[in-house]
Order: sequence, then C-alpha cells, then structure tokens
Amino acid sequence: MHKNEKHGDWFRNPSSWLPGVSIDCVIVGFDLNQLYILLLKWKASDHWMLPGGFVRNDEDMDLAASRILKERTGIQLPYLKQFHTFGNLGRRGNAPLHEMIQNTPPEAQEMIDWLKQRFISTGYLSLINMHNCIPTPDYLSESCSWKALKSLPRLIYDHNHIVDKAMEQIRNQINYLPVGLSLLPKKFTMKDYQILYEEILQRKLDRANFQKKMLKLGFLERHEKQLTGGAHKAPYLYAFNEDKYNILLEKGIGYLS
Amino acid sequence: MHKNEKHGDWFRNPSSWLPGVSIDCVIVGFDLNQLYILLLKWKASDHWMLPGGFVRNDEDMDLAASRILKERTGIQLPYLKQFHTFGNLGRRGNAPLHEMIQNTPPEAQEMIDWLKQRFISTGYLSLINMHNCIPTPDYLSESCSWKALKSLPRLIYDHNHIVDKAMEQIRNQINYLPVGLSLLPKKFTMKDYQILYEEILQRKLDRANFQKKMLKLGFLERHEKQLTGGAHKAPYLYAFNEDKYNILLEKGIGYLS
Repeated sequence: MHKNEKHGDWFRNPSSWLPGVSIDCVIVGFDLNQLYILLLKWKASDHWMLPGGFVRNDEDMDLAASRILKERTGIQLPYLKQFHTFGNLGRRGNAPLHEMIQNTPPEAQEMIDWLKQRFISTGYLSLINMHNCIPTPDYLSESCSWKALKSLPRLIYDHNHIVDKAMEQIRNQINYLPVGLSLLPKKFTMKDYQILYEEILQRKLDRANFQKKMLKLGFLERHEKQLTGGAHKAPYLYAFNEDKYNILLEKGIGYLS
Repeated sequence: MHKNEKHGDWFRNPSSWLPGVSIDCVIVGFDLNQLYILLLKWKASDHWMLPGGFVRNDEDMDLAASRILKERTGIQLPYLKQFHTFGNLGRRGNAPLHEMIQNTPPEAQEMIDWLKQRFISTGYLSLINMHNCIPTPDYLSESCSWKALKSLPRLIYDHNHIVDKAMEQIRNQINYLPVGLSLLPKKFTMKDYQILYEEILQRKLDRANFQKKMLKLGFLERHEKQLTGGAHKAPYLYAFNEDKYNILLEKGIGYLS
C-alpha cells in the first residue's frame, strides 16, 4: 500500500514512523574477483553510509528491511536476514550531522530533527547478485554505488563496525548461508567459487581439496566448458542444483568441517 | 549510578527511557537432568513471561541487558549475548494487557500507558549456573522461578516464540557457545555433560563416541571419582581447563563436525 510513494515522502509525516528504531543494510555483492558493499553518498558531501531507513508504525520490521532493500537495489527476494542490533549510546558519536545538515534541502528540516534522536539500529545482511541490482540513491543521497570491501571508505556513525560485524557473521556461518547461490552467476567455474570462499574467509584454500569437497557434496551440476582462447585448457562451468543445495544448506554445507 | 534504585522506580519517569525499545531475556539453566528457563509471573494472575525491561536514555543496550539480568538473578557476569530482534507488528497481539492492568497497583498507571506502545524487542540469551542464581521478581511480578523447558507454560506476547528462537540459536551454534562451562557445576561426570548436549540437541548421542570426542579435545581435567554407594563403579568427575576451553571455543568446540 506504500508502493507508489516517492523517495523522500518518508519524513513528511514523522508520526507515521516508529521513533528511535532504524535499519541498516549490509548489501554484499561479488564480481568473481572480490566482494563489494553497496553504499550511499550523502548529497554534496564526502560522507558515505550504509543504505538504511526506518520502520512504519504499521509495518513489520523485517518487511521494512525488505522495502528498503527493494528501494535501493530493485531486488525483491534476495537473501536478507538480520544479524545484530546496535544499541550503544555512542554509536553515532562520530556523526558529522551538522555538516550533513548544511547540505540538506531546507524542506527536509523536520527529517533532520528526526535524525537527531538516539536510534537503536538493527543490521540486516543481504547477499545479492550484483548484475541484477540497480543501485538507486535515496532522497538525501547523491549516489548509490558498489565499493570494494577491501578499500571501503570511512563511513558515518558506526557503519564500518556494522560492516565488520556482518562479515564476521558471514565467516562464522558460511556453512549455513547461501553464499554460492546468492553471490555467483548462474554458471561459474570452480575457481570462481573458490575465490568467493577465499574472499569471505580471508585466506587461501587448497585448490584440489576445495574442488573435491564441493563436488562430493553433490549439489553442483557440470555444464559445458568456459569459452576461452585455449579451449583445451578451458575449465568446466558449473551450476547449482538449487533443490539439493537448499536441502544441504539446512544441515550446513560443511566445507569447513 | 543506578545501582541503588528500587524495583519499580523505572516507570516513575518514563521520559528517561528509550521509547519503543525493549529487552527480553532467555535465561537458561541446567540441573543435570534437563534445561530450565527463568520466568516471571505477573502479580495476581496466571500470566507468565520472560524477564525483561527497557533501555535508559543514557545506557548502552547491552548494559541494559546486563542490568536486567543482574536484577533478576543476582549474577553479574554470565554468558549473555543478543540473539535476535523481534519487530513484528502483531508480536504482542495475544497480550492480555487489559486483564493484567486490573491486577496492577494504581500507582503504576503511567507504566501501563508506557506498556501500550509498540515495542521492538531485542532477545538476549544467557546461560547460567542455576545454583548461583537468586531468582528475584520485578515490581510487577509476584514470583520469579525456573520452569522446565519441556513443559513451559504458555507465555504472554510472543515470548514462547522468543524462547524457541533462542533454543534454535543454541542448537545451531553449540560449537561456539560456552554451554558446558556456563551450565555445568565445577565438577561433573561425563554422563552429565552428555545429557546437557542431548537436552540441547534434542536427540540421543552415542556414549562411547561422545566421551572419546570430548576427551580428545583436551580441555577436560579428570578428578576423583564421584562418591556413590558402589565405589568400584563410580564414574570419574571432570572439570574444565578454562583457558584451553576458551581458546578452543574461538575455533569451535567441534563435537558435531
């Protein structure tokens, strides 16, 4: 019922939003070489931040997170799950809010007052295929773009800490999160899959061992060879058997066991 | 600085508390036979609920959870960690608030008004040694007591769901949570330890295999035999080498791998 609202409508009626509660989304993508995080840049400033938003009075918190993700990426049904709630008193201590305010349209004054509250923020982790994503800035930001995790800029508030916590969660729960299915394209090489794991775990893995374990799990279907210059050395392409993958995920895709 | 406040002081000045944000604690104990959850019973009613509370304006959310736990159990530094935030619109839909209000002291009217808000509640999981715990009711409850997890009464709001979610978390992360160290007494038999795992995982484990795996991990120190009638069949008592246990916990106590 809120589908047709334009960006920016949210702050015109602060009383329709839950006070003191916010959502921050760590949206993760992978380009076959490294991991990326989707960021917003505040209008006319150098301030980068995580996409986020608030919860309507008449909205489940999880649905608010889905709505925010849809607004920023165009993607409706990705992997999306809350991972931690950030409630420290000083979590917005480094907020350059006064500077941000100067670069904010005057009609947004009510929203700025709203932003001055203390917020308890629930972090949601999303794993998405970058190529299905249409990065879309929100009303207060001038751009929305992917930044490499390895060279993330300094973010406002505690947002770098929120990213760290999300990555820790992915590492700790790698067996139980659909990292492959969510982050890889439909067809991929074993090397692509291995690099994804290496980027998440932040360490090198043994190639033969990785291939052996993944094939043994039985959810990979082998397809044609990848088209390259030297065809005889071309690697095979694989795809997930989604049913088998999802069944196994319930028990844990025990690569690391 | 709030240490000397009496129970019930919290609602006399609602403006000193964060609106819309609450904490619910799933406090788990083990008596060597089964798992228990600490519950409160609302004054002059049959309504059971999880211990919980709110966050002061000048307090970190995690510290608020520690404070609440201390108030209800007398225990200062147990295992305490948030596990999920509950933000559904209908999560207090089954709340018999009107009935509860009738049994509430008239001076608590302001607090009742406070309770009528929508709350986003963060669940905290605590694993404690029941024998160190002094169950203490809060201002609005007439008793605070341990109830067996297997025969938990119907709780108010979504509190049964919160307990289920906490137990799911313990099962999924059993390798990474200090279940043994937190829930067992200083000295225990291998059978005690196995029953703890069986109660958490809700299935029987093979005795020889359990003992072999746990001993191999190297964090158990063998002590004297347990004093029983038939001394020659008495089982050995064990204790944790806490340093080794904690180091191993970081990597996961891989009983299930």
